[in-house]
Amino acid sequence: MPDIAGATPRIARAGYKDWGRCDLTFVELSAGTTVAGVTTRNLCCSSEVELCRENLKGGKARALVVNAGNSNAFTGYRGREAVEAITAKVAVHLGCPKSEIFVSSTGVIGVPLPKDKAETGLDSAFTAHPCNWEEATNTIGTTDTFAKGATASAIVDGRKVHLTGIIKGSGMIAPDMATMLGYIFTDAAVDAAFLQQLLSASNQTSFSCITVDSDTSTSDTVLAFATGKADNAPLSSFKDTGADAFASALNDICRQLAHLVVRDGEGAQKFIQISVIGAVSDDSARRVGLAIANSPLVKTAIAGEDANWGRVVMAVGKAGEPADRDKLSISFGTTIVARDGLPVDGYDETPVTAHLQGQDIEIGVDLGLGDGRATVWTCDLTHAYISINADYRS
Amino acid sequence: MPDIAGATPRIARAGYKDWGRCDLTFVELSAGTTVAGVTTRNLCCSSEVELCRENLKGGKARALVVNAGNSNAFTGYRGREAVEAITAKVAVHLGCPKSEIFVSSTGVIGVPLPKDKAETGLDSAFTAHPCNWEEATNTIGTTDTFAKGATASAIVDGRKVHLTGIIKGSGMIAPDMATMLGYIFTDAAVDAAFLQQLLSASNQTSFSCITVDSDTSTSDTVLAFATGKADNAPLSSFKDTGADAFASALNDICRQLAHLVVRDGEGAQKFIQISVIGAVSDDSARRVGLAIANSPLVKTAIAGEDANWGRVVMAVGKAGEPADRDKLSISFGTTIVARDGLPVDGYDETPVTAHLQGQDIEIGVDLGLGDGRATVWTCDLTHAYISINADYRS
Repeated sequence: MPDIAGATPRIARAGYKDWGRCDLTFVELSAGTTVAGVTTRNLCCSSEVELCRENLKGGKARALVVNAGNSNAFTGYRGREAVEAITAKVAVHLGCPKSEIFVSSTGVIGVPLPKDKAETGLDSAFTAHPCNWEEATNTIGTTDTFAKGATASAIVDGRKVHLTGIIKGSGMIAPDMATMLGYIFTDAAVDAAFLQQLLSASNQTSFSCITVDSDTSTSDTVLAFATGKADNAPLSSFKDTGADAFASALNDICRQLAHLVVRDGEGAQKFIQISVIGAVSDDSARRVGLAIANSPLVKTAIAGEDANWGRVVMAVGKAGEPADRDKLSISFGTTIVARDGLPVDGYDETPVTAHLQGQDIEIGVDLGLGDGRATVWTCDLTHAYISINADYRS
Repeated sequence: MPDIAGATPRIARAGYKDWGRCDLTFVELSAGTTVAGVTTRNLCCSSEVELCRENLKGGKARALVVNAGNSNAFTGYRGREAVEAITAKVAVHLGCPKSEIFVSSTGVIGVPLPKDKAETGLDSAFTAHPCNWEEATNTIGTTDTFAKGATASAIVDGRKVHLTGIIKGSGMIAPDMATMLGYIFTDAAVDAAFLQQLLSASNQTSFSCITVDSDTSTSDTVLAFATGKADNAPLSSFKDTGADAFASALNDICRQLAHLVVRDGEGAQKFIQISVIGAVSDDSARRVGLAIANSPLVKTAIAGEDANWGRVVMAVGKAGEPADRDKLSISFGTTIVARDGLPVDGYDETPVTAHLQGQDIEIGVDLGLGDGRATVWTCDLTHAYISINADYRS
């Protein structure tokens, strides 16, 4: 992953858990960096999420701190104190307002983040040699099994601008406006308000369209930072030259990052794409898609490579969205299995079974009602998910 | 389970699957039997469910036929033909209108119920010796691991009336108005409209408060039949003597049956009761309770006997119902683990861990907002659920 001028990552060991690895990431951002973000809708969100929301109003960022191994969620005033200690210390170090420091934490819920460990970790990070993005990605991860990053680029105002994204997340993934922890850094110059507009739009077709287990994290945050070091004329609307290209690159990187989370879903063996068309609206299509993607019975059938398409019918019917059983069509891969409310004549399961034996599974649903469409992504539900989660905290 | 005068069960082998067991249940009901019912809200419901809804309007029943091993759902006109063949044949046998015959089927979705097997099965059933309720319960079951029945009684109009209920269901359990297949037979005389009122009310705090896997069956149906053979003055409102006692007995049997389904939830090792108080309304409390009960992360933590109460916080926050993180309290068993938005001072996990090692788990949530309350029931999510569902159809 390429360096991004104006964004310098460093890592350190705060020792939030007894795991002998780096667990604190500190990214210094050059003066003038703009920021946009989307955060979880979970009502029991962490102090970190509340701080991000507050600081996003200013649109400026000088640093990002990410703690791994402890989410600091549901820790009341003690959690807030830890976050305030971190922002105060970084603000002094950089000589900037506290409102330009962004903090995220993930890991166990309900244990206050130890303030002293955070402070010691920051002291180490301040003096550490800059690291590369892969090291930063490994450091923000928790139950992730591989480092998840993506890159994109665009030509804006005659200059090539770069985007680098890193993300963590594997379980408790059912984003609603946002997802796990994801960070996108670009050297493009983009006004904060326009960056927010683009990020919110990209989020709708990426992070908001993935689910691993239907559970929504208390810490979900996606932030985009634009350092402006590419020296393009700052983008402030779609009328600006290169705005479309930048928007497209941002959209691309968000989708890449979202897919990586699903591919690393806890216990996942298969990547499942669910395309819904013919719904009464795009939103309705997305909700039908997520009802299928969250159905334990659909997910276990695919884990078992079983062409049990009746479970897709069930999930469509329980979604609570407009649907007409007798107009419904369903396909697996390129094979239509049911059309207009009953199995197709002479249905041959052979190609469907072959498709299910692969790793990339496609389910198509046509509701036959309107023009609404959406694509969502999920993974299968396996024994490994149970193993990971029946003793994760221990 | 005691006999119910006026309700005579018989069983036969229709051979819907190659499994060498009885799979067709035929219950003959005496003339004058009233009926009430609740059915699934799944929009892709089976022809059987549509027939039940239609026939419930008449309020009279002379027979119930239950097929096991094939749900006949999503089978279009071929499914309807099979149901019509069954009702026609039974109506001729009993000399009654087709509108007094009720049919249910569960099993695989998307395979038309073979009409010829149903007809041959009925011929056997018509001439079979009456069976007992336990045999009937075993015959309506599919993935159920034990026969699920319950009994209750009440004094109505100076006479003892009896209620016997049988139920099947283990997976695809997230009833919304109804659940799996459940049948309650009573010798009490109850007007159909009043029976419906009582059944709908009982359903709200029993079948509508259980979930195994968040998936709602396309075949869910609960029917209550009152033969009137106890010769009490027919109950038609709460003003009638004994109406309260009968309502209480019906409520009791519905709750017993609902609990049995959860105890036999696919792969279940533990029975989990979730009590939510302090919500803005009873409905809101029920939805918060079901969000907890449907969370894979809560259910796997309990399977692992891990006191990971932070996952309960997460589930409360994602429920989409009014909640205030800083007013929330959570208990496991009799131990309060968190209060007012953070862990209790000096929290000792020992009694919680001991509680989780038992088979009956209690989770208490106080939202601290109002007087709304609800209790819901579920089971843990284990490796056995994955094993059962990754190759159920095969």
